[in-house]
Amino acid sequence: MDAATETRELVALAARVIEQAAERGASIATAESCTGGLVAHLLTEVPGASQVFLGGFVLYANSLKSSVLSVPVELFEQPGAVSEPVALHLARSARERSGADVVVATTGIAGPGGGTAEKPVGLLWHAVATDTGSHAARVVVAPRPRDAMKRAFAAHALKALLARL
Amino acid sequence: MDAATETRELVALAARVIEQAAERGASIATAESCTGGLVAHLLTEVPGASQVFLGGFVLYANSLKSSVLSVPVELFEQPGAVSEPVALHLARSARERSGADVVVATTGIAGPGGGTAEKPVGLLWHAVATDTGSHAARVVVAPRPRDAMKRAFAAHALKALLARL
Repeated sequence: MDAATETRELVALAARVIEQAAERGASIATAESCTGGLVAHLLTEVPGASQVFLGGFVLYANSLKSSVLSVPVELFEQPGAVSEPVALHLARSARERSGADVVVATTGIAGPGGGTAEKPVGLLWHAVATDTGSHAARVVVAPRPRDAMKRAFAAHALKALLARL
Repeated sequence: MDAATETRELVALAARVIEQAAERGASIATAESCTGGLVAHLLTEVPGASQVFLGGFVLYANSLKSSVLSVPVELFEQPGAVSEPVALHLARSARERSGADVVVATTGIAGPGGGTAEKPVGLLWHAVATDTGSHAARVVVAPRPRDAMKRAFAAHALKALLARL
């Protein structure tokens, strides 16, 4: 599938998220590391997104994960920035800071560099925080170029968000 | 120009921003309203972006502009969220919160709704904050679909950022 077709499908998925959030009367927000703003961008491609999408945080550097969303710095050593505890922390903290009902967070390794045997390029942790709790999941996306990797990560994040709305 | 070509040119522009920031040893961050995360997304399409791009804020709702970046609520009444003071405030406050050397902010009306005679669809205020001050500019982009409008806004923001690096 080419980039343009993939992007159209992602915007259609984002439109379902916006529609379902509006039906449920739920506001949404994002906390993105590896997707770097793509999830927020896709949600704001949808006309009327402002009804439910409050905004988000892009926490690319670990320093921002700590200074903006209070991720404890010791987590970056062990278990590392790409991990379940960090994904959950980003989602919960962004929910608190934004006041949104449902928040999705991403942390992963988009490549081309940065992979290790234990944490390969393509590894993604995503998490969703709601009023009833928070849930994280681990995905490993098959190798592909950086832009396609970010799109695959964004698709997982939007589906996780949709499932909790 | 089709969407794919426009996007390729935007990523090339983002790559110049990353390269120039790296050459100057300057870290960068974003504070986006109308571009909804697109500027951060474009910057993070560039391999090695993490050398200089710390992250950003997507302040789609006015409530987040105030709660996250301390924009005084009275500004939303007069002169309004799409204005020079709000653009400057977003850039300066995001610079303070992120610790980045140079920050670009956007606030505008992407459409299709939300335009008025005084503030038409296509109106953009962008601002850049650096260690020596902050600068805002007003642009009106000719009518086009929402996705193309966001791309045009992002191009202006990236060029403004490049000019101040």
